[in-house]
Amino acid sequence: MKQEQGTIIEEAAGGIIHEVQGTAMKPEHANQIANVLEAVKSRDIQNVYFVACGGSMASLSFGEYFISKETEVPSFVYTANEFIHRNPKSVGENTLVILRSHSGTTPETVEAASFAREKGALTVSISMEAESPLCQAAEHIVHYNYKDGSDAIDGEVGIFYTLIFELLNALAPNEKYKRVVSQLPNVGELIQKNIEQFADAANEFGKKNKREHIIYTMASGAYIHHAYSFTSCLLMEMLWIHSNAIHSGEFFHGPFEITDYDVPFLVVKGAGTSRPLDERALDFVQKFSDKVEVVDIETLNYEGVDEDLKEYFGPALAGSVLRLYADALAEHTGHPLSVRRYMWKMDY
Amino acid sequence: MKQEQGTIIEEAAGGIIHEVQGTAMKPEHANQIANVLEAVKSRDIQNVYFVACGGSMASLSFGEYFISKETEVPSFVYTANEFIHRNPKSVGENTLVILRSHSGTTPETVEAASFAREKGALTVSISMEAESPLCQAAEHIVHYNYKDGSDAIDGEVGIFYTLIFELLNALAPNEKYKRVVSQLPNVGELIQKNIEQFADAANEFGKKNKREHIIYTMASGAYIHHAYSFTSCLLMEMLWIHSNAIHSGEFFHGPFEITDYDVPFLVVKGAGTSRPLDERALDFVQKFSDKVEVVDIETLNYEGVDEDLKEYFGPALAGSVLRLYADALAEHTGHPLSVRRYMWKMDY
Repeated sequence: MKQEQGTIIEEAAGGIIHEVQGTAMKPEHANQIANVLEAVKSRDIQNVYFVACGGSMASLSFGEYFISKETEVPSFVYTANEFIHRNPKSVGENTLVILRSHSGTTPETVEAASFAREKGALTVSISMEAESPLCQAAEHIVHYNYKDGSDAIDGEVGIFYTLIFELLNALAPNEKYKRVVSQLPNVGELIQKNIEQFADAANEFGKKNKREHIIYTMASGAYIHHAYSFTSCLLMEMLWIHSNAIHSGEFFHGPFEITDYDVPFLVVKGAGTSRPLDERALDFVQKFSDKVEVVDIETLNYEGVDEDLKEYFGPALAGSVLRLYADALAEHTGHPLSVRRYMWKMDY
Repeated sequence: MKQEQGTIIEEAAGGIIHEVQGTAMKPEHANQIANVLEAVKSRDIQNVYFVACGGSMASLSFGEYFISKETEVPSFVYTANEFIHRNPKSVGENTLVILRSHSGTTPETVEAASFAREKGALTVSISMEAESPLCQAAEHIVHYNYKDGSDAIDGEVGIFYTLIFELLNALAPNEKYKRVVSQLPNVGELIQKNIEQFADAANEFGKKNKREHIIYTMASGAYIHHAYSFTSCLLMEMLWIHSNAIHSGEFFHGPFEITDYDVPFLVVKGAGTSRPLDERALDFVQKFSDKVEVVDIETLNYEGVDEDLKEYFGPALAGSVLRLYADALAEHTGHPLSVRRYMWKMDY
């Protein structure tokens, strides 16, 4: 069960490159991650800040989730401008600040990188554009490929999860984390299989919900960050559908009174320790709303992943599954996800 | 300007009792806070967790805001069930866990108190009911009075802010924090003055928005927690109006595309370092929505508060101002804030 599935093929990149079924991370990416780890190990890192905006912030939040759950190192997530303006006092030379922006041009995040670096923090920028302002502002770069035909291990999911699990292993060594890294080259194939598995359900969701003007999302644990992305970036930004990402644990402390037969909910029933929170909230909404959609993370395809590592892979796989539900809304509403009314059209 | 306004009248309660214009905290409350501080000082507190649900969680969050901004002590906010199920690894004997429930009966919070105490953490429960399960579960009690004619210094605002600023002074001593405590007996009169000042504006808001089915709230810094409470407890729970508390710094990274001429926003224009974030978001919504309401925290009455302490008093005063806006919606919709469809009517 717990065998090392991926064979280490490049010791030079700090043992990060593992091959699974002919798939392995490119050495230049593995070397970037290895450099970050070397820098982390050379400092007395006392806390970790994840700083970005919107969907990029939500993606980084999985790092905070696992660090808080599995290590004693304090970690925090900030939207970039709040980070700069609050100016948390514990940011200093013993701080690791990980920043992220897809294009690497998000002004607030670029400014946050410079701000953190001036305070002496170790800064790491994650982006698809290695030459971007964000990557220039930070000491270290972790670059990923995007829609260039590369495998997912070189894309945003493979690169980020490799970084996070190598970082976990540096902060609180555990053989499990190295096993996650060794099995991550599976992620591309798993994403494809899960897309196939959920395609019909997502299409039905789009068809049924095409007239809705508000759709709530709900989740807990790591998956609350998926709900946040789905709400902010997919529903509100791209589809102009009103929404709010409700934490399943908070649902009964206010939001649940909004539930009615005609109020739609998309509930992510997570895998992992907070699943009981989702189950309780789901039981309730299924009783009082006729419009409940469930994405059950336990039903995902995890082929090639050790049983005890599934909770780490779930968040890595859920994003592309949830994306299908937004694609389906776009298809059935005739409102492409690429349409904007303000972005790219004006300064703000 | 920076004179000690409140005269210390009870050294026995750790110098916490200050009298301003005849108003001073009751010795039994001051002694409870003094006991917490003594316990904090007798331990090597390495981190602070604020744990509660819904509006109580939002209220505790002001503690995390100021601790993160002004000290190097890591502090975190968790909804109670997420706290229990995530089980953050850094909770232990050097942890202070502050819990809060108005009635002291919220089951998840009671369980979180026992959970934290079993891990050896120093636990403090805040409630209006000193005999409640929550208060029985924790080592220390901080009790406040509620609607019994007591002054606000013995109510939830006075008691909580005294606790937090005494705690700040214990974690990172600064004469400013003692000045806050000495001026806090002003808070009751200030709340009254601000209620009078904002009554008409709130009434107009209720009148104008009585047909709305969705109202967004927006804020940043400390005030995002007021927005969260307003959204979850006042709009969604009590008024059955759809909502989402948007962080002003996140607005342009997704949510802003939902803005349209007929989409209502209630924006808290904060006082303090993150005000520029609110200003930018406000400029945008005022350009593209015809339904924008602003509560400007800088325009509050801060009489008797030192200029450099206003940023600490703003969050203490904003709650009762915002409540007026919900009262006005209740008045004009004919939907009392006390109405529920699920709570108190069934098990869930």
